[in-house]
Amino acid sequence: MGNLARGFIFSSLLAGSVMAADWQALPEVAPAPADNPTTEAKVELGKMLYFDPRFSSTGTVSCNSCHNVMEGGDDSRAFSMGVHGKTGGRNAPTVWNSAFHSVQFWDGRAPSLEEQAKGPVVNPVEMGMKELEQAMDRVRELEGYRPYFEAAFGKKNPMTVDNAAKAVAAFERTLITPNSAYDRYVKGDKKAMSAQQIRGMDKFASTGCVSCHAGPAFNGPQMPMGTGFFAKFPTFADNDYVKKYGFMDDPGRYEVTKKDADKHMVRVPTLRNITDTAPYFHNGAVNSLDEAVRVMAKTQLNKDLSKGDVEDIVAFLTALTGEYPQITMPRLPSNPGTSIVAQ
Amino acid sequence: MGNLARGFIFSSLLAGSVMAADWQALPEVAPAPADNPTTEAKVELGKMLYFDPRFSSTGTVSCNSCHNVMEGGDDSRAFSMGVHGKTGGRNAPTVWNSAFHSVQFWDGRAPSLEEQAKGPVVNPVEMGMKELEQAMDRVRELEGYRPYFEAAFGKKNPMTVDNAAKAVAAFERTLITPNSAYDRYVKGDKKAMSAQQIRGMDKFASTGCVSCHAGPAFNGPQMPMGTGFFAKFPTFADNDYVKKYGFMDDPGRYEVTKKDADKHMVRVPTLRNITDTAPYFHNGAVNSLDEAVRVMAKTQLNKDLSKGDVEDIVAFLTALTGEYPQITMPRLPSNPGTSIVAQ
Repeated sequence: MGNLARGFIFSSLLAGSVMAADWQALPEVAPAPADNPTTEAKVELGKMLYFDPRFSSTGTVSCNSCHNVMEGGDDSRAFSMGVHGKTGGRNAPTVWNSAFHSVQFWDGRAPSLEEQAKGPVVNPVEMGMKELEQAMDRVRELEGYRPYFEAAFGKKNPMTVDNAAKAVAAFERTLITPNSAYDRYVKGDKKAMSAQQIRGMDKFASTGCVSCHAGPAFNGPQMPMGTGFFAKFPTFADNDYVKKYGFMDDPGRYEVTKKDADKHMVRVPTLRNITDTAPYFHNGAVNSLDEAVRVMAKTQLNKDLSKGDVEDIVAFLTALTGEYPQITMPRLPSNPGTSIVAQ
Repeated sequence: MGNLARGFIFSSLLAGSVMAADWQALPEVAPAPADNPTTEAKVELGKMLYFDPRFSSTGTVSCNSCHNVMEGGDDSRAFSMGVHGKTGGRNAPTVWNSAFHSVQFWDGRAPSLEEQAKGPVVNPVEMGMKELEQAMDRVRELEGYRPYFEAAFGKKNPMTVDNAAKAVAAFERTLITPNSAYDRYVKGDKKAMSAQQIRGMDKFASTGCVSCHAGPAFNGPQMPMGTGFFAKFPTFADNDYVKKYGFMDDPGRYEVTKKDADKHMVRVPTLRNITDTAPYFHNGAVNSLDEAVRVMAKTQLNKDLSKGDVEDIVAFLTALTGEYPQITMPRLPSNPGTSIVAQ
């Protein structure tokens, strides 16, 4: 299957009735694949690469440009803006807690953070490099990076695309936000959430949101890494929201597999820190969490929520915003007396 | 004179012979104007504003985009790239130690960091906002900023353009890099510089570089804040470098004053951390520090340096790269459930 991540089709779950909620706190450490255990040296290198814009064709776009860790891990835009002001066609997913996704991208086309990290570098509307080796040549040209690659991967040919991607993925696995009000509540601190938030939590479950937004990251049941958890969006297309927000325009995972069954299938996104990741949906068409909740209930569950239901559920979602770790800025090495961009 | 910074014309200095070198270490603290003393609260707020891209028209360009403090305080490009991939016509000066400049911008059109901070926000090829109040409306819309403005400026109408600029300037005054090899040498550690660097230091003085690149920041003699120290570049225009690198294309300070005497006058830039700020000159046309030294000697002093002279002077310039302070990333406030950019 190569890079093409496998998928778990949500409809098989729908056969049953509304699932019982199984509330789980966010783990304090993100899982890492066997061939890329998280180490301090990789995280340090990965952070440098993540913030370095010099591997984009213009020298202006880094991972952090669209997945800004000083904000909600995205860029506040409907569609991200890459080199030369070009825009893509999907909303940038947050990098926060992306380690808890079993596949990456809205269409799940990358089975791991390692594979994901390579995508934007050569996307013509993102970082715009012709090929990964061209970007890597820029990294290799910066001798100041060598000691960091050697510390992370040893002295034998450490400066490879795969190792750069591994380092970025290792850094991203540190970008998790435990200890939200919800997490503290689930762990036993019954005062951590307000009465309205607790009411919203119950409504979130009874409405049926948990059938997709389950698990510690609220992005579905636990799947093996590389196997995605997808849902058809919209499931119920016969309503005004779908037309108003253009939800049928994007074929979703079909673009990757070309299978009819994958039309409009998208990876179920995490709801963690959702207060900080507006605008919403794969096309960023909705710039209000209230409206996003109404849309979801209608398009996925064919339910019309009352004003009070929406307010309570939004209050609960607010409890999912966790603690962002403090990050020190990396110092990016330069080649003394010359720029690798202005050549 | 309003915003139009005054100028001190270098040619009046040239009347004398080569000045004696007066070697000075970089102060540990940058000077601040009487009406904007540096406080912790201002610095904290200023850091947030400095890194926040949401006050640009596209939501993608912050101060740090072109003056990247993770690098040499600039962007490695000849001309910076702002919103929609537009480029300006001058090389971004480093923000590091900019507090030691008595005027800001290559043409010295801003008398202070406070005034400078307002420029790029409304420059159509930089952050691209129509007017400062439009940008400030976005800041004011983010309620999470209010407590920081109140802590810095009090509770009475703190969220103003002037206060935002004051905060950014206060943050920039912390961006200084003392304790370079040169600084340690000047303070008495005679082993801090190599024999070649000491040789280069002598040649730097005897060649005449110090007549402009004097003072602790190597950007001229101490001037009152608001009064610039300018030099004609090129002073000697009859050489191949001038044509090759297009040095006559930019009228310099003349663009600001429309006085003939200001044609091709530019503010003398700092040489601090020059190893990290390639490419060089107001038009970023030279991407090699060696070549930049040769160009300077020829265009400003009509001297042809030997290969050894260039190597020694470059070695000395390398000793001017100081210690960059560690900076923690600010957390940028969001309005829960909505984006101020995607509206």
